[in-house]
Amino acid sequence: MPTKPLPSDLEIARAAKLLPIEEVAARAGIDARFVEPYGRDVAKVQLEVIDELAERPAAKYVVITALTPTPLGEGKTTTAVGLAQGLEKLGKRSMLALRQPSLGPTFGVKGGAAGGGYSQVVPMERLNLHLTGDFHAITAAHDLLAAMIDNHLHHGNDLGIDPWSVSWRRVVDINDRALRNVIVGLGAKLDGPPRQTGFDITAASEVGVILALATDLIDLRARLGRIVIGYTFDGRPVTAEDLKAAGAMAVIMKEAIKPNMMQTTENSPALIHAGPFGNIATGNSSVIADRVGSKTSEYLLTEAGFGADMGAERFFNVKCRVSGLRPDAAVLVTTVRALKTHSGRYKVVAGKPLPEPMLAENADDVLAGADNLRKHIDIVRSFGVQPVVAINVFPTDFASEHEVIRQIAEQAGARCALTTHVVDGGDGAKELARVLVEACHDETDFRFTYDDGDTLEEKIRKVATGVYGADGIELSPQARKELAHFEELRYGHLPVVIAKTHLSISHDPLLRGAPTGWTLPVREVRLAAGAGYVYAICGEMRTMPGLGKHPAAERIDLDENGEVVGLF
Amino acid sequence: MPTKPLPSDLEIARAAKLLPIEEVAARAGIDARFVEPYGRDVAKVQLEVIDELAERPAAKYVVITALTPTPLGEGKTTTAVGLAQGLEKLGKRSMLALRQPSLGPTFGVKGGAAGGGYSQVVPMERLNLHLTGDFHAITAAHDLLAAMIDNHLHHGNDLGIDPWSVSWRRVVDINDRALRNVIVGLGAKLDGPPRQTGFDITAASEVGVILALATDLIDLRARLGRIVIGYTFDGRPVTAEDLKAAGAMAVIMKEAIKPNMMQTTENSPALIHAGPFGNIATGNSSVIADRVGSKTSEYLLTEAGFGADMGAERFFNVKCRVSGLRPDAAVLVTTVRALKTHSGRYKVVAGKPLPEPMLAENADDVLAGADNLRKHIDIVRSFGVQPVVAINVFPTDFASEHEVIRQIAEQAGARCALTTHVVDGGDGAKELARVLVEACHDETDFRFTYDDGDTLEEKIRKVATGVYGADGIELSPQARKELAHFEELRYGHLPVVIAKTHLSISHDPLLRGAPTGWTLPVREVRLAAGAGYVYAICGEMRTMPGLGKHPAAERIDLDENGEVVGLF
Repeated sequence: MPTKPLPSDLEIARAAKLLPIEEVAARAGIDARFVEPYGRDVAKVQLEVIDELAERPAAKYVVITALTPTPLGEGKTTTAVGLAQGLEKLGKRSMLALRQPSLGPTFGVKGGAAGGGYSQVVPMERLNLHLTGDFHAITAAHDLLAAMIDNHLHHGNDLGIDPWSVSWRRVVDINDRALRNVIVGLGAKLDGPPRQTGFDITAASEVGVILALATDLIDLRARLGRIVIGYTFDGRPVTAEDLKAAGAMAVIMKEAIKPNMMQTTENSPALIHAGPFGNIATGNSSVIADRVGSKTSEYLLTEAGFGADMGAERFFNVKCRVSGLRPDAAVLVTTVRALKTHSGRYKVVAGKPLPEPMLAENADDVLAGADNLRKHIDIVRSFGVQPVVAINVFPTDFASEHEVIRQIAEQAGARCALTTHVVDGGDGAKELARVLVEACHDETDFRFTYDDGDTLEEKIRKVATGVYGADGIELSPQARKELAHFEELRYGHLPVVIAKTHLSISHDPLLRGAPTGWTLPVREVRLAAGAGYVYAICGEMRTMPGLGKHPAAERIDLDENGEVVGLF
Repeated sequence: MPTKPLPSDLEIARAAKLLPIEEVAARAGIDARFVEPYGRDVAKVQLEVIDELAERPAAKYVVITALTPTPLGEGKTTTAVGLAQGLEKLGKRSMLALRQPSLGPTFGVKGGAAGGGYSQVVPMERLNLHLTGDFHAITAAHDLLAAMIDNHLHHGNDLGIDPWSVSWRRVVDINDRALRNVIVGLGAKLDGPPRQTGFDITAASEVGVILALATDLIDLRARLGRIVIGYTFDGRPVTAEDLKAAGAMAVIMKEAIKPNMMQTTENSPALIHAGPFGNIATGNSSVIADRVGSKTSEYLLTEAGFGADMGAERFFNVKCRVSGLRPDAAVLVTTVRALKTHSGRYKVVAGKPLPEPMLAENADDVLAGADNLRKHIDIVRSFGVQPVVAINVFPTDFASEHEVIRQIAEQAGARCALTTHVVDGGDGAKELARVLVEACHDETDFRFTYDDGDTLEEKIRKVATGVYGADGIELSPQARKELAHFEELRYGHLPVVIAKTHLSISHDPLLRGAPTGWTLPVREVRLAAGAGYVYAICGEMRTMPGLGKHPAAERIDLDENGEVVGLF
């Protein structure tokens, strides 16, 4: 492919002409009285706007997902941003609903998360650092509950909490490996009692998932109260309500519940809200942002973490179940490099460049990885939703390789379009936008993978077989016991989240393409009663990243003008 | 005293008619282009305004301090707020510079900290919860450094840091007794190495003191770099700069450096910024807020923690040394109940009502506590600053008791005025405002207690004898060794902070009034190289509060309209 020299993300972001954020909101039909500016270029949107706009027609609702990604990511965020801009170029009013990036990892390996090239959310410093403080509120609310648990144990343990059963850890929004396993409560009697516990990163907090799934402030308050932190000595669940912590937690979260409005490099509106982990949690932005977005656009685009087996499955089965909103289409972001990786012929490592031979023109490699894309198209179809394959073009691609992807997609009955939004902004995504508009006019027949009334075990099995294509599931004795316990405690009606690797449709990161003839092993099952789901652990789940030997933090600084350098 | 029924603080705050925050700023002469709204009713002020207004005359600069407080506090914040409003009633332009309250203690015993009655900073929910996130930024910057220390040890310890020497702990803005002493780094090799450490509350963070003492962003960056986290095996100090953490920390603090503008119940402007502990740190709001305030008012009022021996001493000797600003007067907030307590005839306990007999009319009790007030007047005088005694009137006071205080003050050569700002707002503080204006026209002869060139030991001795009235100091062998070490490392030029009880002018909380014939025992000495001082520990210093058996958090909640209840 011909390439044109592209300025750095930072240069493009700084060169972007931002509109006053009130004007961005006004264009989306949000009256200034619902807009609370938070610094220049960011605003919170008050939830009262939802009632105000209740009579408006709902937007077409589109989830941006992907095939199984390489460790480098396939550009879902840039595609979502580019597509929103592309829709605007066609005269359609778009709204983005994206997750807020976690602050901690910004100082680890990953740098910023704001899209890229001419398809970014700006200002990137605001997005990647504190934004309006929602993650800090999650941290404070989460850790207040933790403090109240240990304080309750200290002051005589009236509730009879079994300290060994306490599963509520603490959180910080920093990559801090040393906090994964700690003993707290050492010192003197007034500083205790001692107890082994640990810290996760804030994105793994159940409070953050509650923010993502709450439908309004009353629902947020109720969900916080339902959080189960452990059990009494006689086996009864202990909730945040029992500890009288939920009210204070809701007060801490009072502002965080309002979604944050930003804009793209081409001034398309974006709602940035919540950012729960994609592995153990839902990996989607908030229900509330979607409720606002649905009434303030013609096309609401929301991104779901990892591949369609991960974020999109949870988006459909968990988030749409809670919100009542029904999707019209799913965009499957696809890259030449991902399909080449799924051929099984190359090894791609995060933070390292692609192997040189992968950059040669090789349509056969792409074809060899086709099963993965076909399977993701089928996954989207299993929900009765229209798939649109977006080929996210990289400068190292060849037209012959794109053509193979197009054939795979069309043979599988999916629409397909190239997109060059990173280099060309919204203009580069116009074709994709046209195809998406077309897809959104098709009939949909949305359906969940399982019913509320299915047992938890049935739900896990239906996702494993009906979505992933496993032959079945295998429960460890512990998992079996936990499932029985949760059913007995009347949590059986909850939906499920399967915590597994995102690097394969199976639980095994080494199984490429569309694995068949395998069984999903469930090691343990955990309860997120406040968020409102049960999650099955099928592999090592990392909930607190570490820093590398030379983390990004070492390069991040202010220059002599006080501008941020090294963040991107 | 006759009393009139007073609505609750919350009712008064909610009934207050707030002006648009841009208008509050405009009245102070701050152009809209320097004002960044953060939600309704709060804004950050850009530091560029300082250069813009460089030609303006400096305001009269007034510190609000107190005699030795009872555990209930004597109303310094309400007096500062009331006095600002009183000055406005006289047609003077006032500016308040107050500390941001810490979020954690709001959920402990103390409830909100926003003044009271008709002298409050509003909206109190914003002030007492996240405000604009500055404390969260302090927490994140502080804990990023902590993570980078343990990460450095994990990745081979190239700098040769002696793990046992690491004094940099972590912080959270939650009262969490169980975090005072912890072991981190347990688990597997990738989660370590194990190390004993602990957490303080965010208000105790050196990063927060740096925010309070930095003169601009460049200075903030430099101070962060100078933080000493411990020593190498061969005894060299290890700084945040050595760990390449200071740049990232400065980036995290980039917005926090801008002071926050709010208003009082009568629409006087207030800059709320930084909130370092009053025991081990400076207990004043920021130099930057004072730099802004000095150019945007005729009277800049700033509050200093605890009595004049504590916050005011540090305000004069540390903060004014750094800022170059020179005070014109000090308001000594005095109450009948405090002088009665200093008689030694009653025992006052935090969180409990006053002993019944203390409420009877008894001018003799007041007189018996006079020594404490006289000593604080002397302390203020020792800096060459005009003292103004403000009698903060309570409904349980008697006129005869006020008269005694007035006589004590005037005999000691101080001006004096009653103030009823809690009940009457600015009108109640007009007399005090008049007296203050008069005092500010007197000649001042400001002087420090010690010179930069004095040794650290001499500095401690000069504060102990020249300010507190001790006979001398007694250094423990450890303290002696540490002082020698800091001198050797060339930190001898730094000012000192004496970390001692605030309940006595001495180190012993049981010594009431104006103790004589005592020696200040210095147990150990610590270095805050980034903040830029050395602090001498003279007693148990609590840097992480706990929660009571029934903390305020249990009563704090949202009502059915989503309004906060129980916070005040």
